[in-house]
Amino acid sequence: MTSPAVPLPDAFAISPAPRSLDAEIQHKLDQKTKPPGALGDLEALAARIARVQQTLNPVADRAVHLVFASDHGITAEKISPYPQSVTAQMVLNFLAGGAAINVFCRHHQADLKIINAGVAGPLPEHSSIVDASMGKGTGNFRRESAMTSEQLTTCLDTGAHMVDRFAADADIISLGEMGIGNTTTGAALVCALYNWPSETIVGAGTGASDTMQTHKARVVREALQYHRKRLNDPLSILTHLGGFEIAMMTGAYLRAAALGKLVVVDGFIASSAWALAHAMQPAIRDYGVFAHESAEKGHRRLLQQLNARPLLKLNMRLGEGTGAVAALPLLRLATAFFNEMASFEEAGVDSV
Amino acid sequence: MTSPAVPLPDAFAISPAPRSLDAEIQHKLDQKTKPPGALGDLEALAARIARVQQTLNPVADRAVHLVFASDHGITAEKISPYPQSVTAQMVLNFLAGGAAINVFCRHHQADLKIINAGVAGPLPEHSSIVDASMGKGTGNFRRESAMTSEQLTTCLDTGAHMVDRFAADADIISLGEMGIGNTTTGAALVCALYNWPSETIVGAGTGASDTMQTHKARVVREALQYHRKRLNDPLSILTHLGGFEIAMMTGAYLRAAALGKLVVVDGFIASSAWALAHAMQPAIRDYGVFAHESAEKGHRRLLQQLNARPLLKLNMRLGEGTGAVAALPLLRLATAFFNEMASFEEAGVDSV
Repeated sequence: MTSPAVPLPDAFAISPAPRSLDAEIQHKLDQKTKPPGALGDLEALAARIARVQQTLNPVADRAVHLVFASDHGITAEKISPYPQSVTAQMVLNFLAGGAAINVFCRHHQADLKIINAGVAGPLPEHSSIVDASMGKGTGNFRRESAMTSEQLTTCLDTGAHMVDRFAADADIISLGEMGIGNTTTGAALVCALYNWPSETIVGAGTGASDTMQTHKARVVREALQYHRKRLNDPLSILTHLGGFEIAMMTGAYLRAAALGKLVVVDGFIASSAWALAHAMQPAIRDYGVFAHESAEKGHRRLLQQLNARPLLKLNMRLGEGTGAVAALPLLRLATAFFNEMASFEEAGVDSV
Repeated sequence: MTSPAVPLPDAFAISPAPRSLDAEIQHKLDQKTKPPGALGDLEALAARIARVQQTLNPVADRAVHLVFASDHGITAEKISPYPQSVTAQMVLNFLAGGAAINVFCRHHQADLKIINAGVAGPLPEHSSIVDASMGKGTGNFRRESAMTSEQLTTCLDTGAHMVDRFAADADIISLGEMGIGNTTTGAALVCALYNWPSETIVGAGTGASDTMQTHKARVVREALQYHRKRLNDPLSILTHLGGFEIAMMTGAYLRAAALGKLVVVDGFIASSAWALAHAMQPAIRDYGVFAHESAEKGHRRLLQQLNARPLLKLNMRLGEGTGAVAALPLLRLATAFFNEMASFEEAGVDSV
């Protein structure tokens, strides 16, 4: 195990995926009835899944998709065209099965679980939602800490617990989020983590006008200035600037990797949660597959920083983990060709 | 109907897809519970399928994938690292179910049909192959015409007939190909069609070395010079430089569009067949969805020429229509969200 960048509980201890099968995996790829490398990124993807699962017969059948929903005190700064109440309304839409992520999960056979990480509006008891609420949204990080360090610890543990509870037998785990204001939170987090100017990262989110984006970038810049003496490491950054759903996602990513599971990383906000997990535990990189380059402004730079090349680029910017679930068939196709295609010898085809 | 660029039988008469439903389609998109446009390219894709099918409830369930296989006399010029015999061997692999396209079609629920357009090697009688052989490969277009104009007519008609026979009730039609040497043929066709220098288009194909690629580009250049007085229109280009499988694909694309069907266009060779169909009947553009930007050198320029932006870019260069079938889940996801997502009103969510 590599040393973690910050001290974390044993539940988050991540070992790099072993390289011991790599030669056998490449040999199996090269025996398939196709020119060497002709399946391109699907070959690399098959090899990664096989490596993480430490098998020559990798599987991507059972997928679990966890959506963490929460509100953000930063919405008081008028950084979104939508009111905070839309977070709860969209969670009700998830429960009724009418949102994009419901359709995507149904069609791509992913088990969907909704986790209330801290939605401000009232939510009903419902068999499809897990109540892990940390309260009615975070503090407004422009003027105060988003949460306490105790709350952050609870969020990381809760994210891990959701993985243990719902995804321990999954082949593939993906995460999504819902929270009005959370592109502002995500931008603040990665700007603090990488010392980036806010105006190069802050984007339109759900559809902020140019004027609102300029304002949003100023709010983030002022927040970074306000907290500048407290942003010393990934944990303090997440405490002061984070969201409950983002912190739970960070915990879920760390735990999934600690369990040796492949995780599918979605767009800008999911990537910001991953970036924090990566900063805490660099060995996590072996376990992440990036699904989609979002249309959200800061995502491309964040992907470059993480040395990540997503499978899809469909100009989506919806959140909910839609990009991650949209990419699931490619993971399954990669395992399918790797397991099912004939070798040159089996098929009696001349190789070069 | 727009006037065709070249005279063609009525079976190939293509009308532009009507725009009469466009406003209703956009209205339905904008009522979905998501920020306007947030599903990006999937929204444009749903709108295109709905327009082609002239319905607010588009479907992409039943997919038929036709693979046309043939040999190429140009292989006598040593332009491929694989011997011509591999074409027949790979067709046998298709029939045994062991090739990439078999796996892709099984996993993405596409009905696969193999058409022998002119394979040189012996092939068995088999329920999964259609014998439409034009002979043991084309003529070597470096030194003679690839086929006669009568053969071209037969190829176009056969391609159309395969669509009528196997795909008349399909929601989505995709085409693929197999033929050692056919990246050379495809390069010659598009260089003739657009007056492009061969060295800017000729690529590695199944894996030609740099030296072989230089030779391959020279062969194409010399062939274009040899035939220069006969390359007057798409039909004469296809006659002198084409492949039996490529010509059948051109006929199949034209017929599918004439029937008002959406077709999924794969990589470089499929796009060269499409480019010829497009040159014959520009109205075909409404019916084509480009699936994948291939790693084959000339494909990007060809896509730009056709004003096409593919759904995927996975660095594949296998042929068989693998890129087209890999993209099928995105077409289905587009129709699924369009048909199944709740509207703001249905879900009780505030819109902006």
